[in-house]
Amino acid sequence: MIIIFKSGATDEQIDHVIKRVEALGLQAHLSRGTFRTLIGVIGDESLFQPEHFQAVPGVADVIRVLPSYKLASREAHPQSSVIEVGGVKIGGGYIGMIAGPCAIESAERLDAIAGAARAAGANILRGGAFKPRTSPYSYQGMGEEGLKILREIGDKHGMPIVTEVMDPRRVELVERYTDMIQIGARNMQNFVLLTEVGNTNKPVLLKRGMSATIVDLLMSAEYILARGNPNVVLCERGIKGFDTQARNLFDVAAVPQVQGLSHLPIIVDPSHATGRPDLIPPCALAGVAAGADGVHIEVHNCPEEAMSDGPQALLPEQYAEVAGQIKKVAELLGKKISNVAPSKAGTSA
Amino acid sequence: MIIIFKSGATDEQIDHVIKRVEALGLQAHLSRGTFRTLIGVIGDESLFQPEHFQAVPGVADVIRVLPSYKLASREAHPQSSVIEVGGVKIGGGYIGMIAGPCAIESAERLDAIAGAARAAGANILRGGAFKPRTSPYSYQGMGEEGLKILREIGDKHGMPIVTEVMDPRRVELVERYTDMIQIGARNMQNFVLLTEVGNTNKPVLLKRGMSATIVDLLMSAEYILARGNPNVVLCERGIKGFDTQARNLFDVAAVPQVQGLSHLPIIVDPSHATGRPDLIPPCALAGVAAGADGVHIEVHNCPEEAMSDGPQALLPEQYAEVAGQIKKVAELLGKKISNVAPSKAGTSA
Amino acid sequence: MIIIFKSGATDEQIDHVIKRVEALGLQAHLSRGTFRTLIGVIGDESLFQPEHFQAVPGVADVIRVLPSYKLASREAHPQSSVIEVGGVKIGGGYIGMIAGPCAIESAERLDAIAGAARAAGANILRGGAFKPRTSPYSYQGMGEEGLKILREIGDKHGMPIVTEVMDPRRVELVERYTDMIQIGARNMQNFVLLTEVGNTNKPVLLKRGMSATIVDLLMSAEYILARGNPNVVLCERGIKGFDTQARNLFDVAAVPQVQGLSHLPIIVDPSHATGRPDLIPPCALAGVAAGADGVHIEVHNCPEEAMSDGPQALLPEQYAEVAGQIKKVAELLGKKISNVAPSKAGTSA
Amino acid sequence: MIIIFKSGATDEQIDHVIKRVEALGLQAHLSRGTFRTLIGVIGDESLFQPEHFQAVPGVADVIRVLPSYKLASREAHPQSSVIEVGGVKIGGGYIGMIAGPCAIESAERLDAIAGAARAAGANILRGGAFKPRTSPYSYQGMGEEGLKILREIGDKHGMPIVTEVMDPRRVELVERYTDMIQIGARNMQNFVLLTEVGNTNKPVLLKRGMSATIVDLLMSAEYILARGNPNVVLCERGIKGFDTQARNLFDVAAVPQVQGLSHLPIIVDPSHATGRPDLIPPCALAGVAAGADGVHIEVHNCPEEAMSDGPQALLPEQYAEVAGQIKKVAELLGKKISNVAPSKAGTSA
Repeated sequence: MIIIFKSGATDEQIDHVIKRVEALGLQAHLSRGTFRTLIGVIGDESLFQPEHFQAVPGVADVIRVLPSYKLASREAHPQSSVIEVGGVKIGGGYIGMIAGPCAIESAERLDAIAGAARAAGANILRGGAFKPRTSPYSYQGMGEEGLKILREIGDKHGMPIVTEVMDPRRVELVERYTDMIQIGARNMQNFVLLTEVGNTNKPVLLKRGMSATIVDLLMSAEYILARGNPNVVLCERGIKGFDTQARNLFDVAAVPQVQGLSHLPIIVDPSHATGRPDLIPPCALAGVAAGADGVHIEVHNCPEEAMSDGPQALLPEQYAEVAGQIKKVAELLGKKISNVAPSKAGTSA
Repeated sequence: MIIIFKSGATDEQIDHVIKRVEALGLQAHLSRGTFRTLIGVIGDESLFQPEHFQAVPGVADVIRVLPSYKLASREAHPQSSVIEVGGVKIGGGYIGMIAGPCAIESAERLDAIAGAARAAGANILRGGAFKPRTSPYSYQGMGEEGLKILREIGDKHGMPIVTEVMDPRRVELVERYTDMIQIGARNMQNFVLLTEVGNTNKPVLLKRGMSATIVDLLMSAEYILARGNPNVVLCERGIKGFDTQARNLFDVAAVPQVQGLSHLPIIVDPSHATGRPDLIPPCALAGVAAGADGVHIEVHNCPEEAMSDGPQALLPEQYAEVAGQIKKVAELLGKKISNVAPSKAGTSA
Repeated sequence: MIIIFKSGATDEQIDHVIKRVEALGLQAHLSRGTFRTLIGVIGDESLFQPEHFQAVPGVADVIRVLPSYKLASREAHPQSSVIEVGGVKIGGGYIGMIAGPCAIESAERLDAIAGAARAAGANILRGGAFKPRTSPYSYQGMGEEGLKILREIGDKHGMPIVTEVMDPRRVELVERYTDMIQIGARNMQNFVLLTEVGNTNKPVLLKRGMSATIVDLLMSAEYILARGNPNVVLCERGIKGFDTQARNLFDVAAVPQVQGLSHLPIIVDPSHATGRPDLIPPCALAGVAAGADGVHIEVHNCPEEAMSDGPQALLPEQYAEVAGQIKKVAELLGKKISNVAPSKAGTSA
Repeated sequence: MIIIFKSGATDEQIDHVIKRVEALGLQAHLSRGTFRTLIGVIGDESLFQPEHFQAVPGVADVIRVLPSYKLASREAHPQSSVIEVGGVKIGGGYIGMIAGPCAIESAERLDAIAGAARAAGANILRGGAFKPRTSPYSYQGMGEEGLKILREIGDKHGMPIVTEVMDPRRVELVERYTDMIQIGARNMQNFVLLTEVGNTNKPVLLKRGMSATIVDLLMSAEYILARGNPNVVLCERGIKGFDTQARNLFDVAAVPQVQGLSHLPIIVDPSHATGRPDLIPPCALAGVAAGADGVHIEVHNCPEEAMSDGPQALLPEQYAEVAGQIKKVAELLGKKISNVAPSKAGTSA
């Protein structure tokens, strides 16, 4: 931690700060410059809240040197984590291929989509039973009935499943059905929900909020890790931008940034990041080329009849094409796509 | 709703869209331009989900003409709403003056702050018992004990109280103690929580999310209104910006924008919007001059000892100065500050 | 300057940096923390380019403590500057009221607008002769003929004039006609143009670029000051935001931020900041309430016939109303509107 | 064009608009909806300025259906353009590999860098002789002396050259020396400069401004095309974002967005987009995987001694590694890297 004083800070103000630093059991290393005075704080930074010092008279700024996340940091865990989702590996050289419809609509439709997605290369099936919708008048999902369908179809095709939870009162319910719990972008800083999923031991797919910095994302992961659940996969899914021709702004550089700071895997979601079928394949490839540990793509066999977010889904044949290219780029970078269990469905694979 | 076709859309594609529009009981009004064809959809737009049409082959874009929020719109309710919080009016010419510490720390401290804030012109007391903190290691609030203190001190000084709820399981608890329930910026799109507070009849202070558009904010208000609770006060508290010298970017134009689209009152929170005591007074005055229906400012009598967010609080004497100026600007615009009940504290007022 | 080392920096790397610092005639003050090592650099920071050190092996970050602008800083010139534009004062308690059409279209129209604007309280007349248009097919302005008209009409109404220059080859021409030279937002970092207007001694109205930080703006002012022209007035005119319902995002907090860092006056331009007549008056008042040293508003007597940017202009009667309110808010803050010379037009004032 | 009326628009207002549309020789197609009335304007949209209608009483909004750029649009030129730069092709399946130092510092240093870059796979040499610097006190470049060195070293290594021009008065000078003229991000809307380079027939490398939308970028290209110069290559080099851990926000989705709207090639510049050597290789690969027609990377053999922007350069050996991977990703997508002429330098290739 570095404390920088205002140009007119008095000796009393500087002494007051030094005493407060020392009272915390830390050392204060004073540097008086020609124009500015600063203190380097030495010792265990976790004892120190920068905001306590920012409000002290005479202080201009307090700069953190160490990250405020610990368990999520690469310093704490230099090797890249590999997270297993029902036998499918994500991270550390393994690419997760998550695919499926935005919302679960019926067993028949999900079965058709899952079969096609698996045949095309997907290894985890997604589908929403509880949908966060900006309008109270939009379709809100099938609820527990949807969870049952997702479990059944996932099992049929030998694919682990992931689905979103929005309500802390339903974490236990969702946990019972699913292999991986998704926290949506709008809930990335729903600390109550993060704490609840941290109390489970299911893998968590944590999506980046639309105005979250990389550090904000890692702090939210820290909430889950701090409760004892180490199985967190991060997801870049587009942030807010000023050009509204695409739905969001796909921040592909978030992938290597996260990988530099943290051991946790990070995947990309070009469906939500762009909201446009023409942009999904190039952004999916861009994500993998940048080092992403997986790709999350919405797939639907009839986008115009989708109950939710049809325009951001690929058709199964479009998915098959991009999945093939993803595989080649991944191999070029020395990575592989984790196998799934044998399918119990006669028709697929 | 206007549906615009791609330049190469075929007659079959156009006919297919017209049939789907008519199947919804709406009329399709076709215009074939030199370069582009478009359909004006006529009838009750609430029957229509734009996304169903965006995914249809041949369609380039679907443009909404009517807002997707209804109850929150000024068209539905041309007169500005006045929301009463424990006898204090906000909106329709009445300015709410919400003040208090970020977190409730002790009865003694809150008592001192409340007395000073009321004497300075505040008419609603704020204080956090459950704190949304970006770090799991930061102070998380006093919980129910804090709610009791807030109630007691509010009553003593004759001030209605407002406090944040983060957990849908605690809405009932918070509702029992408080006069107004706050939904924080990070929970603006926590639709589960919005639904729960919509089920109460307490006034709700709904803070704008850091990447929420004006329409997003009104859609979140619509969630509360649609559950039957009409008592919503909106709050501009800064959005995400690219210049990190201030904590957030204070979007003062949100005030007249909201007032043009909606009948709901909107207040400003320069404490969170700027995070800097030097910027709070000018931004508070700017908000009122732009037409805001109230001002939310954090006040603390010893910022450097605050458990949370000390740097964004004003000292009581700083608050008194800006509150005096706010009153003058409000009067200049023909508005007044709603009176509070007589204080039961001998020392204040 | 503070140089922070990576956690694994070697002693050789640290020594290498210390030697480079000392070779510049500066002192390096080393602090070895438990987790990180850092160096406080002491001496004249202007001898030091941070980027030279950012690329050195072992260095994690280099943090500037002093601003990189000097002449524009309040530390260099603690008293607020008052800039005189043809006898009209801006800054230090004087409010500049700049008004006029986007583009000069004819002497008759400008005469009518100028007369009305002056009668309403404007003290400087604006009008564009060279227009920066995003489309090469849009109206580009009257050129020198427009400058002549602007000079003539300004003189008739006793109002100093301001107009934009876009081409360094025309600075001399524009300088000959005008009392104040405007640098538009898109040219804020056109360093060639900044250097040319810095070589004149005319007051310069420097508009903030749409993605410029406050420091970027002050660095651009520094370009002008460094050439010997101290007469710079800054202008907040909206930055790029994610909500496209208004044209730009009016950053009202820029006003007190600039005033804290710099002695230069700063005015606001709600016409360009919002692009909507309904938002111009509230944002104009907000700017003055936040401490702005002036207001720039486009005024046109027939917006629907304007050659450029009609929708962001007020009608003369709308301008008169907001100008009256601006005056009251300014007086409330102890400021006044500088008088203009007597008008030579029988009809105005 | 679609003109949407406010809900309370009167018949007189609607008639007035219809008459104005018809006066332009266009047809007005009226649709009266239950809640809103709109007009579809049919005919040649280039006769129509939306802003003339936005300011008309009763009008709520005017929506463009056709793009305002014409020559740059893919509709005008369905086949992807291939731009030749001194024999090196960019676009239409050919990848341009532009590399070199930020600033030209000396013939010896440039010779060493150029030889290494060419050997690693670069086919165009870059180097700045006129540098746009945010500080007037930073190094501003070698000027014409630098142009001579760049020409000489490019010729020696058989590499065409590209360099930036900032001043319209120097376009002729720069044109004389270089094979391709660069317009920097800060000058993307310097319309005077765009017009001047449009008057030459040299290929132009047009960098996207930090707050420019895709349409803004294409409109700036249109300025050049409209003057008769069809040789424009666009460049995504990072836009302004809210997370300051990287220098800018690399908008990789801009690549397929531009390619959908325009026939012009678009390359990526991960050096400026990220400003961090650790992020340059992953973002370079991401860009190519997303379909970019080339990659612009700064290369320096001693970043810590660079006169400008050392931290965003790769070492020659780092460049060689990423260039090899770029080649593989390009081949995977069916593209190739255009050959350069035989080098005249004994040491390189």
